[in-house]
Amino acid sequence: MTRSAILEHATNLASQVGLSGVSIGHLAQDLKLSKSGVFAHFHSKEALQIQVLETAAARFVEDVVRPALSEPRGEPRLRALFERWLAWAKSQRTPGGCLFVAASVELDDRPGPVRDRLVELQREWLALMANVVKAGIADRKFRPDADPEQFGHDLYAIMLGYHHASRLLQDPRAETRAHAAFDSLIAACRPTRKTA
Amino acid sequence: MTRSAILEHATNLASQVGLSGVSIGHLAQDLKLSKSGVFAHFHSKEALQIQVLETAAARFVEDVVRPALSEPRGEPRLRALFERWLAWAKSQRTPGGCLFVAASVELDDRPGPVRDRLVELQREWLALMANVVKAGIADRKFRPDADPEQFGHDLYAIMLGYHHASRLLQDPRAETRAHAAFDSLIAACRPTRKTA
Repeated sequence: MTRSAILEHATNLASQVGLSGVSIGHLAQDLKLSKSGVFAHFHSKEALQIQVLETAAARFVEDVVRPALSEPRGEPRLRALFERWLAWAKSQRTPGGCLFVAASVELDDRPGPVRDRLVELQREWLALMANVVKAGIADRKFRPDADPEQFGHDLYAIMLGYHHASRLLQDPRAETRAHAAFDSLIAACRPTRKTA
Repeated sequence: MTRSAILEHATNLASQVGLSGVSIGHLAQDLKLSKSGVFAHFHSKEALQIQVLETAAARFVEDVVRPALSEPRGEPRLRALFERWLAWAKSQRTPGGCLFVAASVELDDRPGPVRDRLVELQREWLALMANVVKAGIADRKFRPDADPEQFGHDLYAIMLGYHHASRLLQDPRAETRAHAAFDSLIAACRPTRKTA
């Protein structure tokens, strides 16, 4: 079995049982491989968990980031990012919800290289959302005084609220609520509010 | 050692290692008690975990809900709820952050009575926030067309965003961001926006 096939399995597993549940022993058992065979690919549980984060991040770029960035700057690009994130959080690619959301709570008290890599990835994601707003401001699609970092923070909060409402509470209105919150957030950025 | 002293310890432990880490064996070891002694109090790991949720919920009522509800209706009460929640999430009473936020991600894929009780408690919390908005509307402190349930959902999303930014990212601006988001949310509810 190839390294990438093992990682595919490990990434699916992590979204369901958490990153801490992904160990060399667990994977060897699941995939009917020898522990030494899995060990030869990853060398440590931490290295394996970091590779799981990288695999999930590559999927995320493919499913969410790249297609959204091909949309026109400003609101269409921001909306695509939001819609694709919602689709990501409920997709079969991450059967246990967004792996990054789950790992964030799981690792927040566990210092080490896995947490460090997760923090980098989450900061990149927040910076990406902020940059989409910045580009929209530069193109005068958004108000010049909109705060891109605040927007990124607020948009991610909406996503976290959706994740909680849909996954834990199984609230049938979770998606409607998230859309309403997104619409309010973006309305506050439109230049028309000030110039009307 | 009394049942309530065991529960105090278990609740502190849960906020750090997660609810799943709280077992009768773990507590017996920590507290130098016999397993059968701890078992006599709780009978099962699930019953113990539910009692941990009840203990945390009682602390939450004492630290957050009751003092906030003694504030005047409308904005002061809502702001007190928000400020007290922020204080709760970073207090030494929950050394690993808000136990309910952590448990929400931990249990979302684990059906059973512990998850069911958590869902009830989280629904009560959302309903409480919505009710504070409803009372404010009735007293004409908020716009008559404000949506209390949407407000509760959005306010909890702000709290979840704060939890992520402060605990995982250790963002020094986490609290400033949360306050800015709260101010925007409440500004949209003020009757003055329509009547000005």
